[in-house]
Amino acid sequence: MKQTKLYKEYSDTLRKYADVEHSIAVLSWDKEVNMPPDGNAFRTQQIATLSGIAHEIATSERFGDVLEELHGNDKELDKEALKNVQLSHNDYQRGKKLSHEFVVRRSTVCSNAYHQWLKAREANDFNLFKDTLEEVVKIKREEAELVGYEGHPYDALLDEYEANYTAAMLDTLFTDVKAKLVDFVREIRGQEQVNDAFLLKHFPKQAQWDYSVDILKKIGYNFKAGRQDWSPHPFTTTFSPQDVRVTTRVSENDFNSLLWSSIHEGGHALYEQGLPAEKYGLPSSRYTSLGIHESQSRLWENNVGRSLPFWKAQYSNLQQHFPTQFGNVPVEQFYKGINKVQSSFIRTESDELHYHFHILIRYELEKALLEDNLQVADLEDAWNEKYKAYLDIDVPSANQGILQDVHWAYGSIGYFPTYSLGSFYAAQFYHQATKDIDGLEAQIQAGDSSKLLTWLQQNIHQYGRTYSALELCERTTAEALNFDYFYKYAVEKYSGIYGL
Amino acid sequence: MKQTKLYKEYSDTLRKYADVEHSIAVLSWDKEVNMPPDGNAFRTQQIATLSGIAHEIATSERFGDVLEELHGNDKELDKEALKNVQLSHNDYQRGKKLSHEFVVRRSTVCSNAYHQWLKAREANDFNLFKDTLEEVVKIKREEAELVGYEGHPYDALLDEYEANYTAAMLDTLFTDVKAKLVDFVREIRGQEQVNDAFLLKHFPKQAQWDYSVDILKKIGYNFKAGRQDWSPHPFTTTFSPQDVRVTTRVSENDFNSLLWSSIHEGGHALYEQGLPAEKYGLPSSRYTSLGIHESQSRLWENNVGRSLPFWKAQYSNLQQHFPTQFGNVPVEQFYKGINKVQSSFIRTESDELHYHFHILIRYELEKALLEDNLQVADLEDAWNEKYKAYLDIDVPSANQGILQDVHWAYGSIGYFPTYSLGSFYAAQFYHQATKDIDGLEAQIQAGDSSKLLTWLQQNIHQYGRTYSALELCERTTAEALNFDYFYKYAVEKYSGIYGL
Repeated sequence: MKQTKLYKEYSDTLRKYADVEHSIAVLSWDKEVNMPPDGNAFRTQQIATLSGIAHEIATSERFGDVLEELHGNDKELDKEALKNVQLSHNDYQRGKKLSHEFVVRRSTVCSNAYHQWLKAREANDFNLFKDTLEEVVKIKREEAELVGYEGHPYDALLDEYEANYTAAMLDTLFTDVKAKLVDFVREIRGQEQVNDAFLLKHFPKQAQWDYSVDILKKIGYNFKAGRQDWSPHPFTTTFSPQDVRVTTRVSENDFNSLLWSSIHEGGHALYEQGLPAEKYGLPSSRYTSLGIHESQSRLWENNVGRSLPFWKAQYSNLQQHFPTQFGNVPVEQFYKGINKVQSSFIRTESDELHYHFHILIRYELEKALLEDNLQVADLEDAWNEKYKAYLDIDVPSANQGILQDVHWAYGSIGYFPTYSLGSFYAAQFYHQATKDIDGLEAQIQAGDSSKLLTWLQQNIHQYGRTYSALELCERTTAEALNFDYFYKYAVEKYSGIYGL
Repeated sequence: MKQTKLYKEYSDTLRKYADVEHSIAVLSWDKEVNMPPDGNAFRTQQIATLSGIAHEIATSERFGDVLEELHGNDKELDKEALKNVQLSHNDYQRGKKLSHEFVVRRSTVCSNAYHQWLKAREANDFNLFKDTLEEVVKIKREEAELVGYEGHPYDALLDEYEANYTAAMLDTLFTDVKAKLVDFVREIRGQEQVNDAFLLKHFPKQAQWDYSVDILKKIGYNFKAGRQDWSPHPFTTTFSPQDVRVTTRVSENDFNSLLWSSIHEGGHALYEQGLPAEKYGLPSSRYTSLGIHESQSRLWENNVGRSLPFWKAQYSNLQQHFPTQFGNVPVEQFYKGINKVQSSFIRTESDELHYHFHILIRYELEKALLEDNLQVADLEDAWNEKYKAYLDIDVPSANQGILQDVHWAYGSIGYFPTYSLGSFYAAQFYHQATKDIDGLEAQIQAGDSSKLLTWLQQNIHQYGRTYSALELCERTTAEALNFDYFYKYAVEKYSGIYGL
């Protein structure tokens, strides 16, 4: 009885926390999508106030007491409830390791770093960012010590984004990437390049918008529980599992921009729409890790959206939307064009193979910074050397190199690897789905991806945080994350495209 | 020193309260303007959670203690600060008179009433609404007793919308309305009707939108600190003085719908954009009363927007936007058409003269209900009798009569008169403005209303609640609210239009 009552208090507190957190999401979404320019100062203040209130709720002593009482006490609670309590208890303990003073200091450091990064971008000069980045690295090292770790300080930071994953595990993965992918991609670069000129014709904005709505519906995105808007940097945001919004962007001279933004964010949104609404606020209704989140966007974007069967079904509709652009382009040529592999400077514009070198470079640099084996003063040189080594290119400027990402300025060190994890999980999940679903490829080629979505909902979405990324992977594919699934997918697909 | 420190705590609390309140406004705006249908349940919950948090902030014991310490203690604080404290002290005391139990009960009663009102609307049958409206009247009587009053229970309810105004003062005003306006309007109805068929042609949605943006800019609405969107029921909402948004609606077969919605809401928004941003959260940066708020919307809508000088300046642009609709209509004919006086059932579609009979009727009924001189069971008959008496029309159905407004279902009894006060204040302010600003009419006829806006900012907007409606009126026009300004404006304008 007492446990049940306490569990109710626990759930109510988390629901209240979620309400405030999702309100912040509404204010932030509006800021990106709608807000008039003068609204910025007060909006920033309002978000900060709500963040403070959310923090108070999540860190209140009473909530700590409730968690302490419930934690490990399995007299009345079922397995899922106990798991929720355990996760919240961990979150609370982790949160308590960082004092209020530290959190405020970190926020100030990162806020300064962000503004300094903007200035550095404007001047295209890393020197303007150096000192504040140094501060960021310092405070993230401090954070790692406060949080604690067994192996590498990186583990403490990574854990926030990808619970239970470690630098040692990433090292194993990226050793594979280096051993296998670098040579394979180099081989591709030696082949004749595919033609993608038809993707760079003129595509009117409204026509692109209409098509993006079509394609979102096609993959199963529920517009009754979401909407799409424009924003310069596409993102997915969740106000509840029944209001999950995506944004997309457009370039009238490059169809890639909108197409992959919409499908990618759509994949994220399908995960959020698939979380159990009736458990709103509880860990069991929240995404389990950034890597798993990214696996959902990448699976739809790459494994489905950049596959030939998918376009065999979708292509005639695409041609109807854009007759002058695609009318004379055979679907096989389109398929090759959207899978063009080309070494380039910018991570977010990269193809799905080179992408992992961008991540690998950031991971190696982050680790070295945390180990104090690399100084921020030497970071740009180190960056450029690695781009030469892994991508065979000379970085022409800071903006096209070391200054391209905002993540470090935000203090997000340990975040980048989750992007690669996403692709690797996606390949492994998709491989499993083709085994579990009879004739999946034929279904997709017939324009029906609904069984795939159901499979993802049943194996991944419905559990929220009930299973960690590692557990989900084991349960769903009967083995730990294994780079070979991605590698085999890559070799098979791109050997075909590039005639290797 | 101590007072200064306490005043800082007071200001910080109000800023936090304002942040939460404006966050609620963002969530509510999004709900009306953007939200996908399935989002409703969680959004309602999120708004309720934030409302609870706002309530906690505004009613905390500590805040009460701070107010008590500051109140009437003028050792360190300047006049404006003391006024802020006095107003907040009043608010706090008023709030304390209503127990938490009462507030929850009232919210339940009104929530039920609203749903019952929707059902009654659907069935076009007042009987379905009777019982819950009875409950609303009962709880509002209880509220009046809890809040307390000197003269009439109506005063206690009116005070929330129009501080310091009383039923006795309204009686004086509405006696004038009855004595002067009823006969004058009856006289108009005896004249030949003006032609407004050109307003009922086909007006494409996008062209109307473009024009509404033009006209908002023209009256001085700042799009850098706001934006316009579509919504079924137009409204103005404030997230800060630097983000004040309006919505408008459209009928493709009636140009009136968009035109007056945009100008009316634009007038509200000019007031909010004119409140002092640097005093964010304090009473001195909030609108002083609903009557004054409405005076700003009505002044722009009617005194400016339905005047001949205004259209002499704007008409060629309007004709360019709608050449087929207005190309052959002289401006004088347009002016008469937009000022058509016609008895009708629906308040929100009324002309600016009949409008006050709609309000008068509601006021008389509300008062009688509170006095227990009228039973809800007899309300529909009483309503219909008054429409016959004041507007010479037979109400054909509940939806076109007693069920047309949502206000009573929301528990907003004592609210309606602020609409008439708005028009009367507007006439008095505008009359004063023409005296204070040399050649105002000529300026407006030359397309320049900027001096009028500055006059409103300097005399009204900048003060927030520092002066009450009554004080503002006295300060600005050197007399109390006087119906004769509206009456003279009406007689002069409509005698011209209808050849009396």
